[in-house]
Amino acid sequence: MTITQPTTQPDTDQAPTALDAARADLRGRLLADGVLLDLGSPGLYGRTGVFERVYAAVDAAAVRSQADLDADVLRFPPVEPLAAFERTDYIASFPDLAAAVSGFTGDDRAHRALLAARDRGERWESFLEPADLMLTPAVCHPVYGLIGDVVPAGGRNLDVLGDSFRREPSLDPMRLQAFHMHEFVHVGTPASARAHRDDRIPGMRALLESFGLGIDVVPANDPFFGRVGQVLARNQVEQSLKFEFVTHVYGPDLPETAISSANLHEDHFGTSFGLRTEDGAVAHSACLAFGLERITIALFALHGTAPDRWDGDVRAALGL
Amino acid sequence: MTITQPTTQPDTDQAPTALDAARADLRGRLLADGVLLDLGSPGLYGRTGVFERVYAAVDAAAVRSQADLDADVLRFPPVEPLAAFERTDYIASFPDLAAAVSGFTGDDRAHRALLAARDRGERWESFLEPADLMLTPAVCHPVYGLIGDVVPAGGRNLDVLGDSFRREPSLDPMRLQAFHMHEFVHVGTPASARAHRDDRIPGMRALLESFGLGIDVVPANDPFFGRVGQVLARNQVEQSLKFEFVTHVYGPDLPETAISSANLHEDHFGTSFGLRTEDGAVAHSACLAFGLERITIALFALHGTAPDRWDGDVRAALGL
Repeated sequence: MTITQPTTQPDTDQAPTALDAARADLRGRLLADGVLLDLGSPGLYGRTGVFERVYAAVDAAAVRSQADLDADVLRFPPVEPLAAFERTDYIASFPDLAAAVSGFTGDDRAHRALLAARDRGERWESFLEPADLMLTPAVCHPVYGLIGDVVPAGGRNLDVLGDSFRREPSLDPMRLQAFHMHEFVHVGTPASARAHRDDRIPGMRALLESFGLGIDVVPANDPFFGRVGQVLARNQVEQSLKFEFVTHVYGPDLPETAISSANLHEDHFGTSFGLRTEDGAVAHSACLAFGLERITIALFALHGTAPDRWDGDVRAALGL
Repeated sequence: MTITQPTTQPDTDQAPTALDAARADLRGRLLADGVLLDLGSPGLYGRTGVFERVYAAVDAAAVRSQADLDADVLRFPPVEPLAAFERTDYIASFPDLAAAVSGFTGDDRAHRALLAARDRGERWESFLEPADLMLTPAVCHPVYGLIGDVVPAGGRNLDVLGDSFRREPSLDPMRLQAFHMHEFVHVGTPASARAHRDDRIPGMRALLESFGLGIDVVPANDPFFGRVGQVLARNQVEQSLKFEFVTHVYGPDLPETAISSANLHEDHFGTSFGLRTEDGAVAHSACLAFGLERITIALFALHGTAPDRWDGDVRAALGL
């Protein structure tokens, strides 16, 4: 019996660009040096001990940097009820990234039919039914339905961590399908939400720079879907609601990659979830999001795959 | 605007049993005391700081107890490629627990049709296509395809942690849909695999007992599906391949609940994944699995929801 290790293959007819080549090179190094393991699907990896060591250090440093918020801890599973997903309107803006769950609800007879189809080499998904669950695309989504309808004076600070899933298979190791964001959410007044975002940007930048990363803070340009999405994307840039912390993962001549963000939602979630401040006004919210895998992989890209040989200042900043 | 907090409702016509009542009582206490948050779907919860504190302590204690294995760390995302899922034959044994992922692959026009259907209050899952991904039902599954085809002398020890998902909605807080198993896997010879399971059962039992839990070790009785499954379940008990560590979460008069397991797979995964020892024989495997959420919730059930008031010995064993 021969063994076929799963190996993810590029799925494209396009000639590779310099950026494609740089991404393939980093991916190859991370796999060859045993930082990540190829699970056989683009953007899905196993993580080894060296990855986990840096990842845990990045997360701990992010938490320390926001300790003064005294935020309430909330952790979420990788799936959320369809009803909660629907309240965020995600399917309107990012349908191509959304992922729904289905399951088998049939009896013994239906199961035999499924297995017979499978034995014939046919697909068996038609035997499944929607499970009314979605993979959570953004870890802060479940928060807004849980914190009660009136936000106390001073607002609420929340420390949120969970699995995110976005259906964008890619051979770029900076673009995973399954990843984690550690988010520090504030829900309060228009002024306190804006201050949460604006006042903390310098500290986030300094933290990422202490890891040895060169950081620019730029208006975000999220991949809204379709023709309506082009308008939404333009609005997002013009309104400067969301900023991204970007760094050169692939050298100074290639585009930067976002590794964290600072996002002012204004009344978006307050309206959708009926959140109010004590004076009866619609609550505003803002969110600082550390992209844990992206920061971790940016560090391996910049400093190499042997953390014990990283610069002493970088190791000290990470507590490594 | 009024707020509807999501509240999970029982979905049954059956008269509640004493066990149902005990489960509802524990669930109610965990929600009322802010240990868990109801996400609006049975068996899916948000976790608060007090939950996370005990959960992290349980996990750290489990890791310490297996430190002598010097196991290689592997971490996995909550989804796995369909091809990997198929090699485990899970859909034959547990179709009702399996969960498949689908996504939207259409264009702008198809998206408008989806949104129009949604606006009419119709379901929109028919606009999605299978994504060739499954939610991972058992965190050790991805391991066997990744460790190479020949296991070195002495075998391989692996420290595996990841999200598991099983589609079994329940109001029993001990039965989650999304949960974590910390598994310590050995792949080696028939003798080393059996020793991995048998020799470590007393230590696992002692660890769980040090948390103040009364533990019995009993043959497992997994919920194999359908009529063929009844035969498989009987075989499992007769062959004594899998043992469960069970405890009385709901008092001495009601059935015990499994919170960990020790499982000898014999050549099951070695054959499926073509794993061999150096002498060319099919590799055997075994797995010790700590059910992190189940242990954590059992502790809250037994000791109450305020860990600072738990018995000193229990807190010391957990490092709390």
